[in-house]
Amino acid sequence: MAVGLGPLPTLHPVPGFELGIASAGIKRPGRKDVVIMRCAEGSRVAGVTTTNAFCAAPVIVTRERMHGLVRYLLTNTGNANAGTGPQGLADARHTCAALAAITGVDETAVLPFSTGVIGEPLPVQKIEAALQAALDDLSPDHWAEAATGIMTTDTLPKGASRQFQHDGVTVTVTGISKGAGMIRPNMATMLGYIATDAKVAGSVLQDLVRDAANKSFNRITIDGDTSTNDCCMLIATGQAALPEITEATGELFGKLRQAVLDVFMEVAQAIVRDGEGATKFVTVQVNGGGNHQECLDVAYAVAHSPLIKTALFASDPNWGRILAAVGYAGVPNLDVSKIDVFLGEVCIASQGGRSPSYTEEQGAAVMAREEITIRIELGRGDCSETIWTTDLSHEYVKINAEYRT
Amino acid sequence: MAVGLGPLPTLHPVPGFELGIASAGIKRPGRKDVVIMRCAEGSRVAGVTTTNAFCAAPVIVTRERMHGLVRYLLTNTGNANAGTGPQGLADARHTCAALAAITGVDETAVLPFSTGVIGEPLPVQKIEAALQAALDDLSPDHWAEAATGIMTTDTLPKGASRQFQHDGVTVTVTGISKGAGMIRPNMATMLGYIATDAKVAGSVLQDLVRDAANKSFNRITIDGDTSTNDCCMLIATGQAALPEITEATGELFGKLRQAVLDVFMEVAQAIVRDGEGATKFVTVQVNGGGNHQECLDVAYAVAHSPLIKTALFASDPNWGRILAAVGYAGVPNLDVSKIDVFLGEVCIASQGGRSPSYTEEQGAAVMAREEITIRIELGRGDCSETIWTTDLSHEYVKINAEYRT
Repeated sequence: MAVGLGPLPTLHPVPGFELGIASAGIKRPGRKDVVIMRCAEGSRVAGVTTTNAFCAAPVIVTRERMHGLVRYLLTNTGNANAGTGPQGLADARHTCAALAAITGVDETAVLPFSTGVIGEPLPVQKIEAALQAALDDLSPDHWAEAATGIMTTDTLPKGASRQFQHDGVTVTVTGISKGAGMIRPNMATMLGYIATDAKVAGSVLQDLVRDAANKSFNRITIDGDTSTNDCCMLIATGQAALPEITEATGELFGKLRQAVLDVFMEVAQAIVRDGEGATKFVTVQVNGGGNHQECLDVAYAVAHSPLIKTALFASDPNWGRILAAVGYAGVPNLDVSKIDVFLGEVCIASQGGRSPSYTEEQGAAVMAREEITIRIELGRGDCSETIWTTDLSHEYVKINAEYRT
Repeated sequence: MAVGLGPLPTLHPVPGFELGIASAGIKRPGRKDVVIMRCAEGSRVAGVTTTNAFCAAPVIVTRERMHGLVRYLLTNTGNANAGTGPQGLADARHTCAALAAITGVDETAVLPFSTGVIGEPLPVQKIEAALQAALDDLSPDHWAEAATGIMTTDTLPKGASRQFQHDGVTVTVTGISKGAGMIRPNMATMLGYIATDAKVAGSVLQDLVRDAANKSFNRITIDGDTSTNDCCMLIATGQAALPEITEATGELFGKLRQAVLDVFMEVAQAIVRDGEGATKFVTVQVNGGGNHQECLDVAYAVAHSPLIKTALFASDPNWGRILAAVGYAGVPNLDVSKIDVFLGEVCIASQGGRSPSYTEEQGAAVMAREEITIRIELGRGDCSETIWTTDLSHEYVKINAEYRT
């Protein structure tokens, strides 16, 4: 059911970054469920992780280690290692130590990532038994295989790639992601890995990943649930023959930032396009806010309203539900007489009521599309925010109600 | 599909309060869609109304007038008079003026209420043509008829009644409500009317309605949407031969308060039991909070999570989804190791993971029930909050996606 999501585009190799996959038989025999990524020595890693207070064991370990010297990222699917208490933490460390022992690196140079069922013990032995096979598979050309390897209930692999030139040198940014629902039933969900061969100082890289995630991964929502396992990592191998970027200024940084933003945006939006039961890809844009928070409050009220989501599923241009959601978003002293709402290019509501020029046929024509933009003009200031979401379909209920049966 | 909601109980007449219904043919010919309630002279009225910034025209008029001398409450179904701009406001005033002219009261003594489709002009002439028939129907015994008259897509009428004795005098509290979804597609939704023959000073009555609504109507949620038309009114006719209650203290006030709370709770919970597509009646109780707001934040995070709601529909004891929702509720410095979660009497999670004593069979046995309590112990303090909600079923999506087709 993925909306506007085709086969993987060309994923350019990133010098200094290799990927390998193997089968540990965690949930199903033969499924490729272990992915190892290796960064060249001198690589820098930065990341953002879930804000959920119940974060999974591997997230805790990754947070501790990601600002140090990182050489390996170890991912398993089929088991989230979440809700597993102190044993889960020990298990996450144990698999990292096993990979470190084989490869001769310090165990703190290995970051663990898990996605899958919550609350079941991590099958440490199965994972450790598959490490050598995944190491043997390492190649800079295995992005597509890794994109498939990190999938759980995703229906399609997700990846994006950009290249740009600077002083005659080609710089690459390539990334992959997985999602499906924001949390699957017992699945703990979103992972993103984006690598570049640019050389970037640690603090610049951390600011860049936070900025890019805030504009992409943190602006998508399927059902409003925030997973215990979400992680998005940005790796800079520094193999490109260019000077280190030590400040967030200048032409090289500008080019890199744009390429990173593009890749983040494409792999984040791919998660929405492949959302559970999604039949529509919906952009909610809020303009004219007095500040960014009120724009986000309005956008999320619209994106999370089950009434709007079911109307989108039904292709019903139900402007009354949109106005009502704007009205309860909690914006202080909202003057409803200043608000305009657009569906695509059609003004459906103005001054707190149906737009005089609006006809049901105009709205129905926009709603019939697979990709729909809802634009809300608050008329209070200069701030804007945009988020992306899906509709709420019969299929969503079916997937989430029947997942474990 | 209403969960645990039977035929109307006995609704005791309230001296000084009469109800009459008639058919104006607003949406369907023959449907009783106009309800008039008459309060005896000297009655006091208090109310709480929607917090939605897009509030409907009748809500604006009712807010202006409800603290004055009120003699009539005029309700129509089939049209919400919401999103109708200045014309809607004029229309609401016009119907009130028409009723005032027939009955010889000041027009500000009439409060208007509308529920139904958003964004269509109020059919003023049809409503005004039905006023005399509704007046002719006025009777203290027509509570059940009025409960049916205010229904829109409710499947059953909703009402409750209590009586108590004080100094040999019987005091009555009787109420009715309507709901269905929190907002039906284009329906704008919740109305509650509760009357008593106690004599209560205006300020005490206003505090009482706010307190009772906060414990009942403001603690129910079906889909998290807040309607543009919600109103809950408390009328005290003062016909009981007892002294006026001028302070929120003393034995008489205590008895009245309990009876009012009981009636509010019963008619508010009836809205959830008859929620769109509801197959479960779910109590979410949060104990041990550091303050009331964090208890509510956790309770609403759980009650609004589509993943938990679909698990409830599937009778799936999915403790991972509950922990995840508690984790993203935004409680500052949440110590997950102190949290216990109970499904009915069964401890399903403790110290941030699955409870050691828990078995899937125990959880499944609770989930199989129609009425389920999810209890969360935060271990941070002494505050508690309880809210009531429903599951998310195929039927909900069907109702809301196909409403206008």
